[in-house]
Amino acid sequence: MTVVLGPNRYGKAETRVVRVTRDGEVHHLKDCNVSISVSGAMEDVHRNGSNAAVLPTDSQKNTVYAFAKEHGIGQIEEFALLLARHFVGSQPTIHHARVAVEEYSWERQGPHSFVRSATETRTCVVHHDRDGTSTVVSGLRDLVLLNSTGSEFHGFIQDEYTTLPPATDRVLATAVTARWRHASPAEPADPPGVAPRGGAASGPVGSYDFGKSYDVARRCLLEAFADTHSLSLQQTLYAMGSRVLTTRDEICEVRLELPNKHHFLVDLAPFGLENDNEVYFAADRPYGLIEGTVLHDDAPAAGPAWD
Amino acid sequence: MTVVLGPNRYGKAETRVVRVTRDGEVHHLKDCNVSISVSGAMEDVHRNGSNAAVLPTDSQKNTVYAFAKEHGIGQIEEFALLLARHFVGSQPTIHHARVAVEEYSWERQGPHSFVRSATETRTCVVHHDRDGTSTVVSGLRDLVLLNSTGSEFHGFIQDEYTTLPPATDRVLATAVTARWRHASPAEPADPPGVAPRGGAASGPVGSYDFGKSYDVARRCLLEAFADTHSLSLQQTLYAMGSRVLTTRDEICEVRLELPNKHHFLVDLAPFGLENDNEVYFAADRPYGLIEGTVLHDDAPAAGPAWD
Amino acid sequence: MTVVLGPNRYGKAETRVVRVTRDGEVHHLKDCNVSISVSGAMEDVHRNGSNAAVLPTDSQKNTVYAFAKEHGIGQIEEFALLLARHFVGSQPTIHHARVAVEEYSWERQGPHSFVRSATETRTCVVHHDRDGTSTVVSGLRDLVLLNSTGSEFHGFIQDEYTTLPPATDRVLATAVTARWRHASPAEPADPPGVAPRGGAASGPVGSYDFGKSYDVARRCLLEAFADTHSLSLQQTLYAMGSRVLTTRDEICEVRLELPNKHHFLVDLAPFGLENDNEVYFAADRPYGLIEGTVLHDDAPAAGPAWD
Amino acid sequence: MTVVLGPNRYGKAETRVVRVTRDGEVHHLKDCNVSISVSGAMEDVHRNGSNAAVLPTDSQKNTVYAFAKEHGIGQIEEFALLLARHFVGSQPTIHHARVAVEEYSWERQGPHSFVRSATETRTCVVHHDRDGTSTVVSGLRDLVLLNSTGSEFHGFIQDEYTTLPPATDRVLATAVTARWRHASPAEPADPPGVAPRGGAASGPVGSYDFGKSYDVARRCLLEAFADTHSLSLQQTLYAMGSRVLTTRDEICEVRLELPNKHHFLVDLAPFGLENDNEVYFAADRPYGLIEGTVLHDDAPAAGPAWD
Repeated sequence: MTVVLGPNRYGKAETRVVRVTRDGEVHHLKDCNVSISVSGAMEDVHRNGSNAAVLPTDSQKNTVYAFAKEHGIGQIEEFALLLARHFVGSQPTIHHARVAVEEYSWERQGPHSFVRSATETRTCVVHHDRDGTSTVVSGLRDLVLLNSTGSEFHGFIQDEYTTLPPATDRVLATAVTARWRHASPAEPADPPGVAPRGGAASGPVGSYDFGKSYDVARRCLLEAFADTHSLSLQQTLYAMGSRVLTTRDEICEVRLELPNKHHFLVDLAPFGLENDNEVYFAADRPYGLIEGTVLHDDAPAAGPAWD
Repeated sequence: MTVVLGPNRYGKAETRVVRVTRDGEVHHLKDCNVSISVSGAMEDVHRNGSNAAVLPTDSQKNTVYAFAKEHGIGQIEEFALLLARHFVGSQPTIHHARVAVEEYSWERQGPHSFVRSATETRTCVVHHDRDGTSTVVSGLRDLVLLNSTGSEFHGFIQDEYTTLPPATDRVLATAVTARWRHASPAEPADPPGVAPRGGAASGPVGSYDFGKSYDVARRCLLEAFADTHSLSLQQTLYAMGSRVLTTRDEICEVRLELPNKHHFLVDLAPFGLENDNEVYFAADRPYGLIEGTVLHDDAPAAGPAWD
Repeated sequence: MTVVLGPNRYGKAETRVVRVTRDGEVHHLKDCNVSISVSGAMEDVHRNGSNAAVLPTDSQKNTVYAFAKEHGIGQIEEFALLLARHFVGSQPTIHHARVAVEEYSWERQGPHSFVRSATETRTCVVHHDRDGTSTVVSGLRDLVLLNSTGSEFHGFIQDEYTTLPPATDRVLATAVTARWRHASPAEPADPPGVAPRGGAASGPVGSYDFGKSYDVARRCLLEAFADTHSLSLQQTLYAMGSRVLTTRDEICEVRLELPNKHHFLVDLAPFGLENDNEVYFAADRPYGLIEGTVLHDDAPAAGPAWD
Repeated sequence: MTVVLGPNRYGKAETRVVRVTRDGEVHHLKDCNVSISVSGAMEDVHRNGSNAAVLPTDSQKNTVYAFAKEHGIGQIEEFALLLARHFVGSQPTIHHARVAVEEYSWERQGPHSFVRSATETRTCVVHHDRDGTSTVVSGLRDLVLLNSTGSEFHGFIQDEYTTLPPATDRVLATAVTARWRHASPAEPADPPGVAPRGGAASGPVGSYDFGKSYDVARRCLLEAFADTHSLSLQQTLYAMGSRVLTTRDEICEVRLELPNKHHFLVDLAPFGLENDNEVYFAADRPYGLIEGTVLHDDAPAAGPAWD
């Protein structure tokens, strides 16, 4: 028996960068959290602490800030691709880079004043390999949705531990974590996401428009949740994923994690009161957790996209 | 030396209640977190465990649900007053009640579909005493604001531990916790907040309109933060509190807690780049914390309002 | 009607400082979180942004680090007093200082190796005023305790909303937040907490030994919780506070916040099983919250100690 | 293009169960958080909301409580296996079950009194498939370790964004998340983990003793961290994993996630003070994140063990 090194990666997590771009009196704001992981020829550093192959995580952090200055931060997918390609392209010992970016949303209150808006966070995870391939997964988390009717749950298995009564009208609530994979990421001749020096990079890269793609995917999730008369949260999940896939050609796979945030009808009978689906207790734990994937039957191989 | 019992209170904290009201196909939603504390003739329970004076916290929780059904949940201040007066009015051993309510905001997506909106939470704390007096404090927390310019900080004390350079243009960001005291709470002949059975209580109680008061106070905070060319966060705090007081007569005191969410300009010189207020590191800890009170010189005594 | 400035304070919160002291090969570790608030002649900075009276929070942070070097960190109360007296003593515009320190506990694994131990955090809050008076409150939080029997709850008020059955044997669990006030803080001729330069200050200051006081107070809380056959959590609270007061003369007042972390007996009857106090559901929300003060009848006035 | 259903699973997450076992006056306590995910013939429920194949998550929760009563909770791996095999064995539509258990540690204070101890949480994840195979991964999280010397970092890549100076003596601190895979889980003729009815199941199952395995693995991690003179956190990671593998034959693979909790030396020169590795700032974000796997070269295939 011999001990060997298996899969590994390292990098700087949660570099918080805020990029301000000035358009005369009017400022624009991008507020992101960038996490980098790289891997490659890292046998030595694990076995004997030789750091000759190691780009310090501190340098990775510095790169985030320098690139934010040089290229601006446009769509987060572009910024992530730019970083991932840089690390793989500039260091022979780095064979693969994974860059995850979270973006916090701000609403304008004045020419240079902003208020944090929305509970959800936009996300992306990008992989780039030294063979030249990239994968891009976009997404969001903490999008909290609730339907106060239009949801049922019955006809389920009854085993010896089943006490749940069937429900023909319940509250359905969840906090959506959604990630969707792009069929083929932009592969422009020029570095993606490169804006005029100091400018706020944005807009299509190659044939892609990550901003529009995000907006429509998010709306699909919201609308499918609201539109679907639900017999189970799984059905709603499938409807949400399908809506994204059938609306946006560039997206080939959607993964959803939907906690069932239980709202239990309070028993008011002891107080001589009926509860006609009016008063609910919002429970914390335990909760149902529904996880599922919806994809095109001809989706290209995912590679490391979901790692 | 004798050991004696000092100030004490007890109650059920964080009862999560969601109230749905149906207006034909259109549903309305109130999503609250209710925390109750009562005090009074509690010497015996502390000294020997006699519970004869104790209304169980479980009963307090039940009361929240029953009242949500019977009276609906209108403005949270009204619901809190209703509960506080009930406990003091119905139990001789309860001399004082404090009810705190948090309300989470939802935005409509369809007739019965909602999405959680905004990062901030609306709050209130109500006290009611058996002498008949009530105090009402309204507020909010987690309202995150940022100005990307229009803020300076210089002319401060230089002591032997001072290394901070003066700033004539900085990012100013904070997460507002604000609470404001109403000069005199509604004291209607009828119980406040009582809506037609099953209806969604709302609107003015006596001469009060807590909903409008909240909306305007919130807007004052937002606008004063955005409008004020700031030489210090204290100046901005004072401007925010003053704006509320001079705009709304019914509010006599404002308390603000403003963490200074530091955004440090990243030094890009080692990379041959200038940083003309473009790239910032958003720090977590430590942070400045500015706390202050702004009030009318003739504000009535606060009593237990802030406890 | 005129708008006036009320109570205010500002400072640097949550400066995280780790102090290593070397005793040959053996290292000692103090890991603290320091929060400073000062107040005084701050009218101008609020009204017009003049910072002439303002010691930057950045300088306060620097002072924490410099003092950690110069004086070491002994008992946290001593370090807090040292800082509070410095700010008031060195700046005419600062009339009052409040310093709160949290300490995280580490257990030794080797001469220079440590593992974080215990879930609880030791705390203190110190006030110092320019009239020369100091107050010291010590404490802890997140000390999680559970008795699996020896707790009852019955004989309580039955109102129309009461459905809770009486209990003669229940689980009693809580996460203790305790703070205790010292009757008179150390007022030595020499600065308190001053250790030989670079040394690990510790041990008695004047007639005080904050370390021993803490250890005994903590043990009193633990033992009184375990020893008390409880008819209510209030009774347990009183017993815990009394135990501290009657054991340690230097402590004149104890404040406790005890969430009743409900453990509900699961109904196993539907599965043909009895539940003889064996299987519990540990609930999150809502929870009872019991807050109370126990003090000496001749305790000196608290001043701002609890603020 | 057709939309198809990909990998999916569902279940009840975070069922909080506390099991008390009485040995005369002396009570024993197990405090766990159980998360279940099952998968199988779930095409219909996703496509049309037919729940005929769905065992409600509520029934899963009930099973946790009923099994805690009937079988006790011994080693968490045994309890997890018991549950996983039950779901797969009793429901034809469930082809695969994943059960994750967290266990919180309590220290005895009296015959029936306990205090929460340690910051770390013991964990396990068990998979069971209808082909009869099981996999068991044990682990822990939030084990916080620090070496105040014996750590270096130099000889790394210098790129254009590198400003980090080499370090020959630094603080190394991390919060360990470790998971280790058992080469072959217990496959006893009798259901594993089955204790005498009402008893506290514990001890070896088949040839396994999960309790001892955990204790030794945890000690290996602690000791390897403390013993290793570290030239990089990767080296320490590898040493930690190797120590487990070479000490315990039943463990064939170890995965570690080690955030580098940076402790930066504070620059005290502006205050005329030297900082001879005495005063550190404990930073929150960003942080390095080192992830790696160490395994036997002849480890059996992992199957879904890590999912």
